[in-house]
Amino acid sequence: MNDISPVTFEHIRAASGRLRDVAARTPLLNSPALDARLDARIFVKAENLQRIGAFKFRGAYNRLAQLSGQQREKGVVAYSSGNHAQGVAYAAHLLDMPATIVMPADAPQVKMEGTRNWGATVRTYDRRTESREAIAEDLANSSGATLVPAFDDPDIIAGQGTVGLELAEQLEEAGQKADLLLVPCGGGGLLAGVSTAMRELSPATEIFGVEPKNYDDHRRSLKAGRRVRIKGDSFTRCDALAATIPGEITWPINQRNVNGFVAVSEAEVGMAISFAARHLKTVLEPGGAVALAAILHEKMPVRGKTVAIVASGGNIDGELFASCLNDFPI
Amino acid sequence: MNDISPVTFEHIRAASGRLRDVAARTPLLNSPALDARLDARIFVKAENLQRIGAFKFRGAYNRLAQLSGQQREKGVVAYSSGNHAQGVAYAAHLLDMPATIVMPADAPQVKMEGTRNWGATVRTYDRRTESREAIAEDLANSSGATLVPAFDDPDIIAGQGTVGLELAEQLEEAGQKADLLLVPCGGGGLLAGVSTAMRELSPATEIFGVEPKNYDDHRRSLKAGRRVRIKGDSFTRCDALAATIPGEITWPINQRNVNGFVAVSEAEVGMAISFAARHLKTVLEPGGAVALAAILHEKMPVRGKTVAIVASGGNIDGELFASCLNDFPI
Repeated sequence: MNDISPVTFEHIRAASGRLRDVAARTPLLNSPALDARLDARIFVKAENLQRIGAFKFRGAYNRLAQLSGQQREKGVVAYSSGNHAQGVAYAAHLLDMPATIVMPADAPQVKMEGTRNWGATVRTYDRRTESREAIAEDLANSSGATLVPAFDDPDIIAGQGTVGLELAEQLEEAGQKADLLLVPCGGGGLLAGVSTAMRELSPATEIFGVEPKNYDDHRRSLKAGRRVRIKGDSFTRCDALAATIPGEITWPINQRNVNGFVAVSEAEVGMAISFAARHLKTVLEPGGAVALAAILHEKMPVRGKTVAIVASGGNIDGELFASCLNDFPI
Repeated sequence: MNDISPVTFEHIRAASGRLRDVAARTPLLNSPALDARLDARIFVKAENLQRIGAFKFRGAYNRLAQLSGQQREKGVVAYSSGNHAQGVAYAAHLLDMPATIVMPADAPQVKMEGTRNWGATVRTYDRRTESREAIAEDLANSSGATLVPAFDDPDIIAGQGTVGLELAEQLEEAGQKADLLLVPCGGGGLLAGVSTAMRELSPATEIFGVEPKNYDDHRRSLKAGRRVRIKGDSFTRCDALAATIPGEITWPINQRNVNGFVAVSEAEVGMAISFAARHLKTVLEPGGAVALAAILHEKMPVRGKTVAIVASGGNIDGELFASCLNDFPI
């Protein structure tokens, strides 16, 4: 199955083997209070509890672990607003290779520090005047380092797909089958990987991607039947999901696997962050909270259903987190 | 072993069987960032992710599930500042029996609402002018309901002991043995149960109880060689740990099993709450954060060691949580 795809279930299983001793098998959280509120059975795959506080470590490690000895010596370069940055930095630390990460000067502090703490060199740039792609390519060309894409890469997608593999296994261990699965969607790498695993292991599950309202390029692309680029100059706190066009590799996978896309507002995300802290006792960043926001704000009917959602990350600055708690005292 | 104790390892194993389908097997969290900071391997048993956001559900359910049909009909009464309240309320909800809980009027809102949401009747009282014991006894006497103690009861202790049973199993699954275990200590029920399980399954582990500085009755009792009552009129945010004297049943167990007690300040607890949110992506209430506070503030040497800590609860009001994040921007 998926035999024309650059990412198959076998790639995901191989990635899972590489990650076995280094990634966390993150827990599947559930909450009687949440279930009672929505009259449904909700399971939260807590990737905020992954190494570096987000799923991105999985793909980064799966990619870096397959570099040759010579490539490892020359190291890696990546650009990212923060979670891919930390994922690459920590994977490079574990595999003992140099890493340089190109990050916007206004990236969340927690992500910038997390990246530096694992020994990576951070090159900041100005979002308005500089091109991160150009900077990263220059760095890679001059040093011979390998450029590690954030999502549009089969090994990255396969690594993220291990989230779906674990999710399906954990639901089975709990005696559950998901009617519905909601996954945060930026570039589409997590969704492509997770949906590939789920189509194999749980083909009856309906799968939806969730985007911030201002960055709904996947929703528009599905409607148009082709990859649509949005302007991307709107505000969002979901820095992890602020992609402007679906990936070249991820898009055909998602177009085939995914039933649809929904979008959530910034306020809905803020409320979900506060709800997660209060009822799930867990810390989500804005991009990591969109799937929870979608079910809390009834973007689709969940009543009576078994619903899995991916909480993809928890790297939020303390000040923003505190303001969500204060603004949404639910 | 423990054959003179009212709580044996076999009681804990039996409790584990009763809890299998209703309690969460909470995850053991760890964090490369925390390990790097302390140069140790730290494992956090995340009981904040338990049903009702605290370990107290375990003991309450283990006690209530053993009531007779006639006792169930007449229901239960308990007094508690909040986590035992919610534990009893949720257990009574699952077992379909009425529950009345006596709570201080100034209990954390999140705990008051959590208790009411599971259908319990809440009777509030004024800490300064009323006796919760007298109110609860009156309620039990007039209705025939069973009074459910918060900690000084063999079935409650055995239920809390399942935290230790799981912890030992999970450490073994991870190929680890704990050199050191730190457990929050209020009345001493969690510590008595967990230490009983660990003395059986991991006898070489040193076990310490952790108290708030202003409520260090166990530390004083161990020094004095007898149960010492403190005044208990000092301030603490650790409402879950504000007991003034070790339990009659818990004390002999803890005196035998525990290597010592350490105490942490209110500021050290606030910093630990902020640290847990930032680096462990998890929400702790003050009483649930004391063991983390103890290792972060080097109350005992952990360098090079494998250390397990229990994070016992996460029921903190949003306002206080936000103020910890803002006051300790670490």
